[in-house]
Amino acid sequence: MKALVLKAKDVPLSWEDFPGPTPQAGEVVVEPQTAALNHRDVWITKGLYPGIVFPGILGSDGAGMLAGREVLINPNIGWGPNPRVQKRSYSILGMPKHGTMAEKVSVGEDRVHDKPPHLSWEEAAALPLAGMTAYRALFSRGALEAGEKVLITGIGGGVALFALQFALAAGAEVYVTSSSGGKIARAMEMGASGGAGYTQNGWEKELANQAGGFNLILDSAGGAGFSFFPKLCHYGARIVSYGGSKGAVPNFTPQSIFWKQISILGSTMASDEEFAEMLAFVSLHRIHPVIDSVYPITRAEEAFERLARGEQFGKVVFRVRD
Amino acid sequence: MKALVLKAKDVPLSWEDFPGPTPQAGEVVVEPQTAALNHRDVWITKGLYPGIVFPGILGSDGAGMLAGREVLINPNIGWGPNPRVQKRSYSILGMPKHGTMAEKVSVGEDRVHDKPPHLSWEEAAALPLAGMTAYRALFSRGALEAGEKVLITGIGGGVALFALQFALAAGAEVYVTSSSGGKIARAMEMGASGGAGYTQNGWEKELANQAGGFNLILDSAGGAGFSFFPKLCHYGARIVSYGGSKGAVPNFTPQSIFWKQISILGSTMASDEEFAEMLAFVSLHRIHPVIDSVYPITRAEEAFERLARGEQFGKVVFRVRD
Repeated sequence: MKALVLKAKDVPLSWEDFPGPTPQAGEVVVEPQTAALNHRDVWITKGLYPGIVFPGILGSDGAGMLAGREVLINPNIGWGPNPRVQKRSYSILGMPKHGTMAEKVSVGEDRVHDKPPHLSWEEAAALPLAGMTAYRALFSRGALEAGEKVLITGIGGGVALFALQFALAAGAEVYVTSSSGGKIARAMEMGASGGAGYTQNGWEKELANQAGGFNLILDSAGGAGFSFFPKLCHYGARIVSYGGSKGAVPNFTPQSIFWKQISILGSTMASDEEFAEMLAFVSLHRIHPVIDSVYPITRAEEAFERLARGEQFGKVVFRVRD
Repeated sequence: MKALVLKAKDVPLSWEDFPGPTPQAGEVVVEPQTAALNHRDVWITKGLYPGIVFPGILGSDGAGMLAGREVLINPNIGWGPNPRVQKRSYSILGMPKHGTMAEKVSVGEDRVHDKPPHLSWEEAAALPLAGMTAYRALFSRGALEAGEKVLITGIGGGVALFALQFALAAGAEVYVTSSSGGKIARAMEMGASGGAGYTQNGWEKELANQAGGFNLILDSAGGAGFSFFPKLCHYGARIVSYGGSKGAVPNFTPQSIFWKQISILGSTMASDEEFAEMLAFVSLHRIHPVIDSVYPITRAEEAFERLARGEQFGKVVFRVRD
């Protein structure tokens, strides 16, 4: 088969011949039509992940055919029996296990779900990893309720956009941040009530003026911006952190969270049950993932660069087959 | 009546004549036998609290007589209908409302509970504020389960000691920290499995060696020590913060919490329902509060100084009547 092969860190990926998968007991071979990119894939190409093996095939997100059936893949491998937290041995499809950026991928048969019929192949591949991450962060960890005010930072990223769509579908009032005024405007076209550019002085006051305060904040940045979140929180609010691209949080104090009973909740991925719930939610509300761009997989390098530069608004998708 | 009167900040308290309370509708007048000190009282005497009024009568904790009935007082005023979080207008007995360090105190009739019969007057006054804070932090916020490993920092403080007793009664395995080796030894006599001196280099490695890792950490300090907590946490662990005496946390990163699904949970006081549950728990398990020292209220200044110096192991209690 052909696959997008990662041979070493910081070496361009190449679409080339690679031995096809040998399914283990309980596995099936899916033939991806589409795959999607995640930041995780970019970080792996730079060596910024534990336990990277070469040669490898990236890709946690994929949709394709399995014996005439249209399916998408749950990228969880071995979450374990506790819905609250994954086992330490948990891993994600696409490293070290060969992923979806290939003509064939072998996955556990219980990893395969029917593709929601309202989704195109591109939309189906865009959904799994970012959709499940947003779902758990918003509902299981964030305990979002209808009518609450939600702040989603860094709108434009895959998880952030699913969180926007899911929160709106659940009846929340949503505000966003971005470094790009254009992305904020697009989020407001999608239904966000307001937003602020986090690179502008006083963005937090601007948000406080617009919204009054928040019941739930979803963030994948950390850094200096995070320090303002407790002030923006209502009593009893939750701050869900699913990433830390801006690193350490300066000036975090217990005083800022204990009197207001604020919860700061780390979240990553989702249990298998949450994955199934997320698919049902997307089908019920006829949610269409936001696609930033679609590339033939032979032009993968351009796609990786687009994601690395943070230019995207929505998911970057590969067509694996024409 | 006589009362311990706070006339201005940083002025010694004096036991002197003061107008007795005029109960409002729905209030009853309790005659305290005993009262207990909290850090809150110390901070108020230094002016470190919002909305201080002079002259005032301190004291959130008290036990005494009400029409021939032995009672203790729930110090909550106006928590509100949501058990998850108090209303913004919520306040605590003892400022601005006159508190228990007086011969008479007027409180809402639903603030009064029967004194658990196994408690002395001194123990009954020691229980309310610290006991309710420990109960909520451990069970409602911390979701403690039997068999889990718990770290309680700063053992010797009132909340920390109740948390130790409650966690042991609930079947947890408890470790402690202190700056004092003597306090750690006393905690181990009470049932703690181990501990480490947080002023010693490598205390966090010592704890990791002893316990392996923790499911729940209770902390009222923040500061540099807090930065080590995520490393000491098992996957899915909770860090409950109910105070911040050491201030800002250097080097807090989202990376340290999201993959391990760690929750950092601000907590303060407890709802009225939790207060009642705490009393039932203390009665069921025949828990006796740890009393550090008992002072006649005429020697209040010595007691305030003892608490301010952090020398205590357990609650500092006043005898209001002889």
